[in-house]
Amino acid sequence: MPNKTVVLAYSGGLDTSCILVWLKEEGYDVIAYLANIGQDEDFEEARQKATNLGAKKVIIEDVRENFVTEFMYPMIQADCIYEDRYLLGTSIARPCIARGQVKVALKEGAEYLSHGATGKGNDQIRFELSYYSLFPKAKVIAPWRMESFIEKFKGRTDLFEYAKKNGIPLPVTPKNPWSTDENLMHISYESGILENPKTEAPRDICKRTTHPEDAPDKPERFEIEFKKGVPIRVQCHSDKKSSDKPLEIYKHLNEIGSRHGIGRIDIVENRFVGMKSRGIYETPAGTILREAHLDIENITMDKEVRKLKQYLSNQFSQYIYTGFWYSPEGNFVRESLAKSQENVEGIVQMQVYKGHVYILGRESKTSLYNEELVSMDVISDYNPEDAAGFIRINALRLRENTRLRQMTEKMQ
Amino acid sequence: MPNKTVVLAYSGGLDTSCILVWLKEEGYDVIAYLANIGQDEDFEEARQKATNLGAKKVIIEDVRENFVTEFMYPMIQADCIYEDRYLLGTSIARPCIARGQVKVALKEGAEYLSHGATGKGNDQIRFELSYYSLFPKAKVIAPWRMESFIEKFKGRTDLFEYAKKNGIPLPVTPKNPWSTDENLMHISYESGILENPKTEAPRDICKRTTHPEDAPDKPERFEIEFKKGVPIRVQCHSDKKSSDKPLEIYKHLNEIGSRHGIGRIDIVENRFVGMKSRGIYETPAGTILREAHLDIENITMDKEVRKLKQYLSNQFSQYIYTGFWYSPEGNFVRESLAKSQENVEGIVQMQVYKGHVYILGRESKTSLYNEELVSMDVISDYNPEDAAGFIRINALRLRENTRLRQMTEKMQ
Amino acid sequence: MPNKTVVLAYSGGLDTSCILVWLKEEGYDVIAYLANIGQDEDFEEARQKATNLGAKKVIIEDVRENFVTEFMYPMIQADCIYEDRYLLGTSIARPCIARGQVKVALKEGAEYLSHGATGKGNDQIRFELSYYSLFPKAKVIAPWRMESFIEKFKGRTDLFEYAKKNGIPLPVTPKNPWSTDENLMHISYESGILENPKTEAPRDICKRTTHPEDAPDKPERFEIEFKKGVPIRVQCHSDKKSSDKPLEIYKHLNEIGSRHGIGRIDIVENRFVGMKSRGIYETPAGTILREAHLDIENITMDKEVRKLKQYLSNQFSQYIYTGFWYSPEGNFVRESLAKSQENVEGIVQMQVYKGHVYILGRESKTSLYNEELVSMDVISDYNPEDAAGFIRINALRLRENTRLRQMTEKMQ
Amino acid sequence: MPNKTVVLAYSGGLDTSCILVWLKEEGYDVIAYLANIGQDEDFEEARQKATNLGAKKVIIEDVRENFVTEFMYPMIQADCIYEDRYLLGTSIARPCIARGQVKVALKEGAEYLSHGATGKGNDQIRFELSYYSLFPKAKVIAPWRMESFIEKFKGRTDLFEYAKKNGIPLPVTPKNPWSTDENLMHISYESGILENPKTEAPRDICKRTTHPEDAPDKPERFEIEFKKGVPIRVQCHSDKKSSDKPLEIYKHLNEIGSRHGIGRIDIVENRFVGMKSRGIYETPAGTILREAHLDIENITMDKEVRKLKQYLSNQFSQYIYTGFWYSPEGNFVRESLAKSQENVEGIVQMQVYKGHVYILGRESKTSLYNEELVSMDVISDYNPEDAAGFIRINALRLRENTRLRQMTEKMQ
Repeated sequence: MPNKTVVLAYSGGLDTSCILVWLKEEGYDVIAYLANIGQDEDFEEARQKATNLGAKKVIIEDVRENFVTEFMYPMIQADCIYEDRYLLGTSIARPCIARGQVKVALKEGAEYLSHGATGKGNDQIRFELSYYSLFPKAKVIAPWRMESFIEKFKGRTDLFEYAKKNGIPLPVTPKNPWSTDENLMHISYESGILENPKTEAPRDICKRTTHPEDAPDKPERFEIEFKKGVPIRVQCHSDKKSSDKPLEIYKHLNEIGSRHGIGRIDIVENRFVGMKSRGIYETPAGTILREAHLDIENITMDKEVRKLKQYLSNQFSQYIYTGFWYSPEGNFVRESLAKSQENVEGIVQMQVYKGHVYILGRESKTSLYNEELVSMDVISDYNPEDAAGFIRINALRLRENTRLRQMTEKMQ
Repeated sequence: MPNKTVVLAYSGGLDTSCILVWLKEEGYDVIAYLANIGQDEDFEEARQKATNLGAKKVIIEDVRENFVTEFMYPMIQADCIYEDRYLLGTSIARPCIARGQVKVALKEGAEYLSHGATGKGNDQIRFELSYYSLFPKAKVIAPWRMESFIEKFKGRTDLFEYAKKNGIPLPVTPKNPWSTDENLMHISYESGILENPKTEAPRDICKRTTHPEDAPDKPERFEIEFKKGVPIRVQCHSDKKSSDKPLEIYKHLNEIGSRHGIGRIDIVENRFVGMKSRGIYETPAGTILREAHLDIENITMDKEVRKLKQYLSNQFSQYIYTGFWYSPEGNFVRESLAKSQENVEGIVQMQVYKGHVYILGRESKTSLYNEELVSMDVISDYNPEDAAGFIRINALRLRENTRLRQMTEKMQ
Repeated sequence: MPNKTVVLAYSGGLDTSCILVWLKEEGYDVIAYLANIGQDEDFEEARQKATNLGAKKVIIEDVRENFVTEFMYPMIQADCIYEDRYLLGTSIARPCIARGQVKVALKEGAEYLSHGATGKGNDQIRFELSYYSLFPKAKVIAPWRMESFIEKFKGRTDLFEYAKKNGIPLPVTPKNPWSTDENLMHISYESGILENPKTEAPRDICKRTTHPEDAPDKPERFEIEFKKGVPIRVQCHSDKKSSDKPLEIYKHLNEIGSRHGIGRIDIVENRFVGMKSRGIYETPAGTILREAHLDIENITMDKEVRKLKQYLSNQFSQYIYTGFWYSPEGNFVRESLAKSQENVEGIVQMQVYKGHVYILGRESKTSLYNEELVSMDVISDYNPEDAAGFIRINALRLRENTRLRQMTEKMQ
Repeated sequence: MPNKTVVLAYSGGLDTSCILVWLKEEGYDVIAYLANIGQDEDFEEARQKATNLGAKKVIIEDVRENFVTEFMYPMIQADCIYEDRYLLGTSIARPCIARGQVKVALKEGAEYLSHGATGKGNDQIRFELSYYSLFPKAKVIAPWRMESFIEKFKGRTDLFEYAKKNGIPLPVTPKNPWSTDENLMHISYESGILENPKTEAPRDICKRTTHPEDAPDKPERFEIEFKKGVPIRVQCHSDKKSSDKPLEIYKHLNEIGSRHGIGRIDIVENRFVGMKSRGIYETPAGTILREAHLDIENITMDKEVRKLKQYLSNQFSQYIYTGFWYSPEGNFVRESLAKSQENVEGIVQMQVYKGHVYILGRESKTSLYNEELVSMDVISDYNPEDAAGFIRINALRLRENTRLRQMTEKMQ
């Protein structure tokens, strides 16, 4: 059947392997698309597996560099954070993968796009809104929302059975009693035994970062240099190792952060579909970069612009979380926020130690900090009597309010 | 001269002692008001000193309990933070002290209020806006803004000379090359050698918290119970020590946090008067409580209410920082935010270790978390096909936008 | 079949009559619920019709008083407006009707709720979110979204055929080439020939308000008195007619506004489902009340509280438009905004003339306006030199920014 | 004394003439700067007068075109409005005049800038913040805030005496019992008998617009074409008159609006200095343009971008009102908002009649309105069943909230 081609976001794992085979059974030509976004994966093995399972084509793309510069950098510029805690490590990967899929679909003339995300989560939304936004005529196949598929695959046993029957290699390591998502920015752990929000996570759940108690007993010092709100250089003070290319910088900071147990959180968050879920995340470089950027930003950015930026950043975080990366509003805030970063440059001195990030100092050629002006020992241009007027004018409204409200109260 | 009485916010230190004597010289009767807000001070010695210096009256008031329940609790409920980092430990103390002063002024029939805050800082504003709001007819004497005073006291040497001449006891310990402010919530360090934002703070600058590197090698576990968004119980898991009264709870958490080096930050912030300044703050209990409250809040609060709360909280933080605690807008947000906390209750399991706070788990009788609903293994009431419709309707606007913008672009 | 009872939001018109019969055919017992929210309807005729069509029960409820006090009053307090123009006349009626339906369902033990709203509009959402919020176990039948129903009723001809076959009385007047929704607050006109946003609406489309060109040649003057942000009295100056009960006040203002062609708009708006639609609305009393309330509010409310109120009001308007009247966030803003109205009281002098509303003057016992303070001829307590300090401190940041940005630019 | 030169914002009226002479008495060389921003003034007579009074130089500059394109256009793009009612006609003129003054000061090497604004108003702030921002080293002379000046000129009698003594021509027409400010955008009336907010303004107070009752009995129709959010053409339908240059367009719309009594308001507003004041404003073209722009914007702008725009626009209006046109935050929002206007283009059909503006229809090549999609008669691509899923997912949170809150309540 011509053109019934589907581009599947293939991970190499059991689920999407079963989906690949199932899609074929349903009569589709399947192009397996696997984006390298920094996950721990044997890509050649994955290619072989998909080919063996009958994929018409297997496309493996290393998008790590783009993932850093086009997706993570705008988030760093904006200091994005969802509900005051979550750094959006999974959320940001979805539009990056979806874009890759759409590019393949357009090139190959495929109408269908498919993914292995569940029907209760955020990822289905992030994938599909990206599909629809970049490719309005896309048709989506989301097996985990389709009754016929769900009926067939009620639990892991069914998947195993199906795998055995269809020559899908079974995972060699036993599955953890939780699920995991991984990319350059973070690893997440959720569901399974973690679904009870009271249950403490197992001590060794985190794969990327050293447990803080096992981290080095000596702090590690380094500096990050920013230009236009993004890191352009990282340098460690002990080993002098220095990185100055986006992907290298990001990986370098991941190493530092991982070594010292940085960026582990355990939270309950609000999903877009209206339910609360519990997640455990580790985001070493992301955590360091947010602290560093907040610091260099505040010495170079006007305070009222900062307030606007904070509002827009909060909106931007919502958009990213809910899947609206590719959207008119996403584009608008991205461009506006980028504007705000023109002068955000300088060097931040930092230290990590046993799970915590410390800022030690900062300097910037575009600093708006005026040491002389702020000094208690220098009067300079500043006339303290001005402050008296400033306060009295600010107080005018408060005094009137108290006076008149008291008057009213007495009168009644 | 009748009624030329001034109530001075007296600290017991050199500056306000000199101001006390100077005010007398200027012809005022001086009432020294010293609020115990948890600073490290010998209050009886301070009383004696003020009396010796000729204060007409010395009033020392232990307001620690009120400081916790009336000032810190609303901040905890709101998750207040200024510019994403500062927990407002100095800001919140000012209206508390100012209220004490105004009460004394009204009782004693004094028209004048005075304080020792500098002319470049935020504290002068926080003191005086509180004065004016609570006592619209107040007259303010801010010596550090008055030319005659500044002329007389150009540097510390002048203060020392004046002190010697007027029998003001000199500090026995040499002054640090920075200035400090202290209360139950935090200690701040700024100015002096810290004015250069690049200069790293001395290793042992912090007085309250143990240096993280010197903190215990074993994590400490405890739980905090909340009711209506404020802590009602703290219990350590090792020593079983438990506290359930506001001041006790706060002190208990300060102990835990101090022991483990919690809540140290080094930031550049935007002062209300328009300059940037650098501050180092330590806020052990405040840091723990913010993390704990964010956690219990997110499991018990609706997500859309949370967004509103976040906006109001951000405004509230601005008001507190800029001195508008006593203001119509301050009252409005305080009441609104309190409303949002009716169901914020439950127990958070926590751990501190070497400078970092960890959430381990949480439980709540008023939880909106539905383990069955979120479970990937249970369909329950949730129909995954609904999500397809949800996504397609959300995508409608995006698809139209892409389609029409592409059309427009082609046409042009 | 026990308990397969459905409560239908019955309007008395052709569509819901067909739905009533169709529901019966589908095996439901139908309770017809008809809320009197001020539409122009012969309610007894409607009752007879529904009974004749086989409704198990017909419940007609006059909810006009509640509609005014529980639904419109919070909107008046908040100055609600959607996208700067739409006064939400249709939006606000839906939760009011839905609540009536749910009450009946609970009382009668019915599980099902049904309505005649289309599948592309906002009303389906407003009805159903209200149902689900008030009655979480509700089951919804929305015929205009069901393939079987849509297939059967492809156009008006099908409805007419079905009506004839089933003894449903046909409308005596020919249908306008647009659709209409009506209640005490407004009448809306949309779809049909109005779907082309360029097409001018027919001159005589509006049923409630006189065409401005046909309105009286003399302005009409009246005053509205507010208490706690809601009107408590309306008095005309010419005929001395006065009203002081909620429903009477609202009807009185509708009369005044209708006579003078007040409150007609023609807009394109953004529906919740993501499409733009064009609507023509007439909202006479609502338009007058919004102007009057804005005016009395601004003389009695602190300016910073006003900013918060404006933000919350904007959110509230979004919630009402998108159907979240009954929701945690809706409750939260309603309560917060009500708080802000404690002192919003006084009398506004107004005039209407040929389609426009004018404010002539206002007075209030709780006014924060201080005539003496603002007067250019009186210095009073105000020291103009304070303004100099106020300005200089506000300028500090601006001057620094210019100075340092220029320096930076020169250096580069 | 070299370089003690002051650039005075000269209006040609009595006040600034007295200030001119007084400044000379105080030892300054005075450069009189008079900007033509569309006020009704005999500029040559003013030049002569200033020269006669001893101005070292008189500079009269026609900045009307710039006033429209650089100041009003960004406001039109943003739909600016202060406190929901005031169109900022006076506010926006100040930075325009101040910029002219600063340019002269820089060119002439003058250090001082002066204006005739009072010490209680907003204009002093708008002038001076603009001065300081554009010229950080500026020194400001604000006579109406200086004790020596105020002492000398306690009332109008003193001004008259001084004028007579110094050869300053007295106004030939008796002064109205209120004060006025005028420019191309609007005329304002305040103070004097208008200070009592209850007092109705005299029938014939407005100078620019015809009283609505005296306006033509026939409506007038015209269309406005927009491109990038600003008007590029106005055409009347009756007389076919058409304008397509910024200043011409603005004047043309002022004519239309003035003829029909458009844009008159009577409000109480909150001044930046903390007091409430009452003002009467007439803004004919500004009122028409805001309505037209809102309309064309809503058919061409994505709804979520619109929400962001609305927030930023509200902030922008605050900045303009409080004098922060030239500021980092002002620049930021101006640029962001301009971005949002890229596709805001099309033609709006309008009508004015007896004081009211009506939108009749609109069309746009960049429209996001899809007539087919919204049509109730066409299914097209839209699947109504999607709406069911959309609603149920949106309801999930509401149902859970009701269910769990009820459970909690029962349990307690």
